[in-house]
Amino acid sequence: METKPTEISSSKMFGGFNKRYKHYSPILGCNMTFHIYFPPASSTSNKVPVVYFLSGLSCTDENFIIKSGAQRAASIEGVALIVPDTSPRGLNVEGEADNWDFGIGAGFYLNATEEKWKNWRMYDYVVKELPKLLSENFRELDTSRASISGHSMGGHGALTIYLKNLEKYKSVSAFAPIANPMNCPWGQKAFTNYLGTNKADWEEYDATSLVAKYHDVSATILIDQGEDDKFLHDQLHPHKFEEACRGAGVPLLLRLQPGYDHSYFFIATFIDDHIKHHAQALRLL
Amino acid sequence: METKPTEISSSKMFGGFNKRYKHYSPILGCNMTFHIYFPPASSTSNKVPVVYFLSGLSCTDENFIIKSGAQRAASIEGVALIVPDTSPRGLNVEGEADNWDFGIGAGFYLNATEEKWKNWRMYDYVVKELPKLLSENFRELDTSRASISGHSMGGHGALTIYLKNLEKYKSVSAFAPIANPMNCPWGQKAFTNYLGTNKADWEEYDATSLVAKYHDVSATILIDQGEDDKFLHDQLHPHKFEEACRGAGVPLLLRLQPGYDHSYFFIATFIDDHIKHHAQALRLL
Repeated sequence: METKPTEISSSKMFGGFNKRYKHYSPILGCNMTFHIYFPPASSTSNKVPVVYFLSGLSCTDENFIIKSGAQRAASIEGVALIVPDTSPRGLNVEGEADNWDFGIGAGFYLNATEEKWKNWRMYDYVVKELPKLLSENFRELDTSRASISGHSMGGHGALTIYLKNLEKYKSVSAFAPIANPMNCPWGQKAFTNYLGTNKADWEEYDATSLVAKYHDVSATILIDQGEDDKFLHDQLHPHKFEEACRGAGVPLLLRLQPGYDHSYFFIATFIDDHIKHHAQALRLL
Repeated sequence: METKPTEISSSKMFGGFNKRYKHYSPILGCNMTFHIYFPPASSTSNKVPVVYFLSGLSCTDENFIIKSGAQRAASIEGVALIVPDTSPRGLNVEGEADNWDFGIGAGFYLNATEEKWKNWRMYDYVVKELPKLLSENFRELDTSRASISGHSMGGHGALTIYLKNLEKYKSVSAFAPIANPMNCPWGQKAFTNYLGTNKADWEEYDATSLVAKYHDVSATILIDQGEDDKFLHDQLHPHKFEEACRGAGVPLLLRLQPGYDHSYFFIATFIDDHIKHHAQALRLL
């Protein structure tokens, strides 16, 4: 049970390196993998800021690294990309692999309170364990300068984690986030199983609920949403979040992109804008 | 057995569309899939030139579309990308799936002469059937303006198909091509099984052999090769091809890229240069 990360692969890309690591996570109680893209500018004498990217349902730490093409802009802007996995794995909890939208690959970036899912603590893993692990083991990274982004379930993760930790992250963005999970089938299924039936507990992990409480947002929130996304109307509800931002005076740029779907082809098209958005916020320190 | 292509998926990317098609191929005797990326500029009143991309061992028509990020430059340059599969599939030839480097996913872009593999005619499929199919069914494409590229086994395919059809393609490029298959284990295994043991027949599908015969090359051949590619010394032999080009007076730009491996991360890093290389040749018509 080695908590120190071990490198398991390395590939050069745009002058920097995609590196994959394995480590034992005490918070989750299992081995986990994550990816870092180190831009060419990173070194122990030139620590670079970090952008976390949280992935969506059924993804691992590999999808974004393989499909987004984000490394191109990260190389140019001189920011590292940190890509965690989406849930604990290998715990053999009964039913953990029965659904693609719940259990394995579907941690929803929360701390579960129901006994059965007690290892599902992706919120603490992303907010606490991973940043500490990075700052202790990678002297090329300046984890005090951090921003956060994500897709779908990971967009939900990015928005909620950002709002609850405004002092930790300089900016946030999301692609097609689950923006109001309390009011969609994916979120209701996950929250009922992980958190129980008390809806007051759900509000702690719902971006649309949180924005009224945590409204001291300085950097504009950037969201891209494909208009041909088949999950837009039933699951994502970006307009609910937009309405809440307007009510709370939180600056939001919600871009509706005609013809785009929910896939990584959509992410790849607009990822440069997101990386630049974060690099600018990180440089303004 | 529908020879006309049927669209099976469509995703918007960089203003254009990735579309996947299925059709029955009379030449191969099975159903085949291929991808087209249509840049936003393409229409029936503005036909765009095409760049074929041939993939490597074990790939399908999906890998390049998902991993290369080539659509970004293709969108800017106004060229369509045509990505075929790498072999016939579903024929149930005995042993066809026993090896990742032979049979399914390993057509080597040749016309097999051994009876057992008589359906393996990827050369005729790419050079004859597919261009005809495209020109008959996609009025947004100008298939008379075509260039060709590929990776590894597909780099071998691109170089050999180009050299043997200089009138059909305006330019060629390759990533880590199998440049002298007669003299490497992958090529020897494939050629023995598909073509028999007469080495004179092998020369027809060996870029290093062909370049002496077909040397009327006008556009410089572009090859990128990662120096940390684990297949470089045993399988790829770009320096043999370089030597043959020098002997034949064929213009070659062989770029050795320090630190890069054989993966799509390497392709993604340099694909923009290749798309620009072809767009320039296609514009000079």
